[in-house]
Formats: sequence, structure tokens, C-alpha cells
Amino acid sequence: MLPYLEGPVFNASSLHQEGRRARAVLEEARERVARLLGAQRKEIVFVANGSEADALATFGLSAKRPGGHIVSSAIEHLAILASLEARKDEGYDVTLLPVDGHGFVDPGALRFALRDDTALVTIMYANNEIGTIQPIRELAAIARQHSIAFHTDAVAAAGWLPISVDELGVDGLSLAAHKIGGPKGIGILYVRDGMPLVPLVHGGGQERGMRAGTEDVAAAVGAAVALELAEQERVSRCERVLALRNRLELGLLAKVPLSRVNGSEPRLPNIANLSFSGIKAEVLAVRLDLEGIAVSPGSACTSGIAGPSHVVEALGTGNPREALRFSLGTQSTEEEVDFVLQVVPNVVSELRRT
Amino acid sequence: MLPYLEGPVFNASSLHQEGRRARAVLEEARERVARLLGAQRKEIVFVANGSEADALATFGLSAKRPGGHIVSSAIEHLAILASLEARKDEGYDVTLLPVDGHGFVDPGALRFALRDDTALVTIMYANNEIGTIQPIRELAAIARQHSIAFHTDAVAAAGWLPISVDELGVDGLSLAAHKIGGPKGIGILYVRDGMPLVPLVHGGGQERGMRAGTEDVAAAVGAAVALELAEQERVSRCERVLALRNRLELGLLAKVPLSRVNGSEPRLPNIANLSFSGIKAEVLAVRLDLEGIAVSPGSACTSGIAGPSHVVEALGTGNPREALRFSLGTQSTEEEVDFVLQVVPNVVSELRRT
Repeated sequence: MLPYLEGPVFNASSLHQEGRRARAVLEEARERVARLLGAQRKEIVFVANGSEADALATFGLSAKRPGGHIVSSAIEHLAILASLEARKDEGYDVTLLPVDGHGFVDPGALRFALRDDTALVTIMYANNEIGTIQPIRELAAIARQHSIAFHTDAVAAAGWLPISVDELGVDGLSLAAHKIGGPKGIGILYVRDGMPLVPLVHGGGQERGMRAGTEDVAAAVGAAVALELAEQERVSRCERVLALRNRLELGLLAKVPLSRVNGSEPRLPNIANLSFSGIKAEVLAVRLDLEGIAVSPGSACTSGIAGPSHVVEALGTGNPREALRFSLGTQSTEEEVDFVLQVVPNVVSELRRT
Repeated sequence: MLPYLEGPVFNASSLHQEGRRARAVLEEARERVARLLGAQRKEIVFVANGSEADALATFGLSAKRPGGHIVSSAIEHLAILASLEARKDEGYDVTLLPVDGHGFVDPGALRFALRDDTALVTIMYANNEIGTIQPIRELAAIARQHSIAFHTDAVAAAGWLPISVDELGVDGLSLAAHKIGGPKGIGILYVRDGMPLVPLVHGGGQERGMRAGTEDVAAAVGAAVALELAEQERVSRCERVLALRNRLELGLLAKVPLSRVNGSEPRLPNIANLSFSGIKAEVLAVRLDLEGIAVSPGSACTSGIAGPSHVVEALGTGNPREALRFSLGTQSTEEEVDFVLQVVPNVVSELRRT
């Protein structure tokens, strides 16, 4: 990214030589992203982050049926759920499919939910809190049978699961570069060629009219490189992180009485979501933070107060206030896992005593 | 920005130590931006670019009167004009005030245009194509007398004009960091405390609920530093660039017969918009590009085809296809200006001969 941040940086939408050079760099980044998704360059819209990709998808892919019906799931990221609330305010009717106690959407329930006026189905590829992987291919095929647009939020899945849009059979797919080691400030919305999309941000016609604003060339390059590296290293990283995650989960289950894992396989390899009976996740998170262990109750949220997890609540199998998320990454080590295995059981016993 | 791009980068909305540190950096950047505007920290919303700031302003500040009336001007940036088209589709009624032959909005015309159902007035501080500076203080006072929200697109003005929101008397103000030497990918919307704003992108509650998405800490820091430097150097830069701009304009007017400047004082010091009678700006731009001179017919636009300038068209004083924009910057030199003064008259004569 640095050459495009440090050098003289021209507007990729200017027609002069310098502008055309910036555009060539931008379009090469777009091509690289498209290749990773098995998509065409014109199907890639650069946006600011995963939330904007989700907002643009729910707004833009449903617009051909104003006031129509949208189907989603109860465990979506807040970027989808809050966007759908906004769509409701605009007159859309929204059905949130439930999940079973393991964290999965039932394809039969989707089939049952579809209506003549259903404009869009949006179901996440993998959940960001408990890691469960939805049967996207099957769900997308059902929507396709009814000629209904199918979008998936793949923000949590990217870097861990294959993201070929044709294999998944989706019409829209959201990504965020920072979740796969890329920069913050750049997200991607894939939109299948021919799908009508109405923009949220209008202006100078950038991104084929789908998202106005002077293009962030450096961030687009960062996103492309991050996606490429993530894909190259994906299988080996999954194996490595899965071994660490299993060590962590099995260790915690063995050492902490009355503990349980939220969500069942198939799951992402990098997330361990556990409940320790009687222990509020928020309290435990604050205590572990003091020990140098960074964990999250629910999703990252700016209020400074973590509410109960809507995802674990949807499972219906435990107290949503007790669910704590441990995220592992490419740089996590066995030593770190063992440190967590040493600290957490002690802190939980201590909290249970008091 | 580099420490926040290169180091381990945490989510500013996570509650653990690392997240809180990222948040502290973000909020310090917000405080620095607020100080520059004479605003409060909570009045600053970070977005992706000037177009998103404008889109959020037209959408979010008019939403308290759904289907109401919005007043703007005929020479706004496409980010405003295209957003207003979208608002029309949502049922709003839009009045575009004309400008006089010098490029100015008449405050009397604004007073006359206001209606009982006017929800928002949005008029740009300075024009990006011809540089004319609108009497924002006077225009904003008229809106305020009628308790109507007043927004200004200050993207072209920043770095050249004072941007104290209280002195201007505005309720909303858009900025783009890359226009003042900051990074691409970050814009700012100031919204006066107490003004209801409805978000475009919903999700995890970031930016006080006004714009969801994981915060781009590095870009926010870049925006803050760019604004600070721009303000520190503003007066001296204006003097220097104005001298160069005058050298350029007076030189071209003297050396090229049948040439004219579009827009009158008060203007931004960095823009020279000229028409050379009988010469299409697009043709001239392509020829000058071959000589290493980067100029723009109309605004930067992605279509690859520059249309006639809607700004010069609104002046009503010349052919909007003939208006060519020369932009100067802090790094422009007298030698560059003299090179332009040497090349342009020859190219214009040559084009006129053929």
C-alpha cells in the first residue's frame, strides 16, 4: 500500500495520465479480488467496510421490489440486523429464520418462509460469534429456484472458507479486508452481473455508479493482497489454528466444571465460544483483560456495555449473558493457549466462590 | 498513520485493553478535528469520503420531515446533486437555486425559496470547478431564522478558507481528507449537537450510531494531522498559491486571444477555470496531457467521457463545453506555471487553425 500512500497520489477518476495510472492500479486490485472470488471485475464494488457492504446489499438488492419481503436469520451480524430494521422503516417486511440449538438455519425453514413478494434472502456464511457455517450452497439454491436474490455476509468466513461465488451460488457477498489481515477502511461487495443494485451513496459515478466517492487506491491494493495471501495460506492456517482452538476448547472443558461450547461443527477454526455456568461473560472478560487476555462478550460494540449475545440467545440452549468468545489468529501460539488454560480456570473458580 | 497500519491493529470497538487503546487514538483524532472546526468531539462523524458525507447529510438531516422540501444550488458537486436526485425518488421536493453570471447564489433567492415544509438547505462553501465562495454565513443565517437545518459542502474550501462552524453558522459541514493532503478513504461530516441525523449505514453503533463499521483508526489520524497542517499553513499557502494562480490566469488571458475566466472574486486561490473560445475543453485536455500538463474539463468523472460542465452552464455566460480547470497546489512552482504559459497558447492556436 505504501507507494499509493506516500507518493504523489492522483485521483483515479481524473482523465489525465496521472489519473489513468491511479485507475490502472485500482482496476488491477479489482481484478485480483475478482479472480479470488471467481468473479468478473465489474462485479466487485469497493466500499468502506463490511457494514457498508451489508447495508448496500440489503438496500440495493431489495430495491427492485419496494416494500417487499426479505428473509434473513436470527444470528446475523448487527450490520445486517440493523440494516434490516432500517428496511422495515422503509416498508419492507422482514422474516428472521431461527437457528437450531447447534446454530444452524434449516433449509426447509427457508423454503417455507419464501413468499411471492420475497425480494432478497441474506444469510451469513459463517457466524462471527460462534463460528457455525451455514449450508450456503443449499440455501442459495432454494432462493435461485424461486428467482430470488441471495446475499451472504462472508466477513467472518473469509480467510477460513472457500469463497468462490459460483460454487456458493450466491448473487451477493460481503467481505471486510481487515478481518483477513488487510487494512481497515475497505470492504468489498460482490454483486452478480445483471443483478439490479441501487446505490446508497450517489455522486461522480465511481464504482460503476454503485458507490460514489474518490477511490481509495491504497486500501484497494491492500484488500487485494490480503485476500491473495489469505487464500494462499488458507488450508495450512486452518489446520494450525484448528489444532490450537481444539487444545483451548478441550482444555477449558476439562479444567472448568460446568462449562460448554456454544455452536457445533461445522464451525470456523478460529473461534471458541464458551459459557461457564453462573459466570457473566462481561465480568469474566474484565478480569481476563487484567491478566492480559483479550476476549469478547458478544460482538465488538461501541456502547462500552456488552449486552447479552443475540446469537447465543437464538440457540436457546444457554444463558446469552454467559457466552464468551475467544478468537485465535494466524499469530496465536501454543504458549498463549496454555497461558489461557492456566488463568481461566482459576479466575472462574474465584468468581464462583465470591 | 504508519503505526496504526503496520503494528498489530485492534478493533477500536472492542472492550479489552488493546481495543481501548485503539479507541483512545481514534477519539484523540476526533478531538483534533473537532478543535479545528470549533466543534465538539461528539459532533464529528468519520465517513469514507466527501461523497458519503454529502449523502449522509442530505439523507440524514432531512429525515425528520419525510417527503419535505430541500433547497440547494445549481452548481453543487455531483455528490450533492446526485444525492438530491435520490431524495426526489424518495418523495422529497428539491429546489435548485440558480447562480448569477459570476457564480454566486443570491441570499434573497434563498429567502424566497423557503417553504413551511423545507427540511434542509445545502449550499456549498466554495465551488470545486470555478472556485467561487458563497456567502455561507448570510445564507446559513436565513435558514436559521426559519429553524431550517443548513449544511455546506466544504470539501473544496478546506485548506483555503476558515472552517469554524460557529462563525459560518452551519448545522452540517462535509470534508474530505485527501483534498487537503490527507489520505483517501476518509471523510468527515460535522453535525451540530442536537440536530437529528438518520444514518445510512446501520450496525454496531460506531460513530455514536451515525455510521456503522469497524473504525479506520489510521485514516482518522491522517485526517486529523492533514487538517491541522492545512490550517497552520493556510494563510501563507493562500498567498503563495494565489500569486501563482494570478500569474497563470493573467498570462493566459494576455497570451490567448478570446479567452476568459469563469467565476469572479471571491474565489479560492487554487483554481483557474478558463474558456478558450471555439476550443472544446476535452480536446484541449487530451492535447495538454500529452505535453505533461494535467487539467480537467468539468469534474473528475469515471465515465471516461467528460460532459459539459454543469457549473459553467449554470453561469449562463459561456459554452460549458469550453471550460477547462487548472488546479494549483502547495507544491506548484513558478516554473510549472511558466511552462503552462508557454505550451497552452501554442496548442490553442494550433487547434484553432485546424
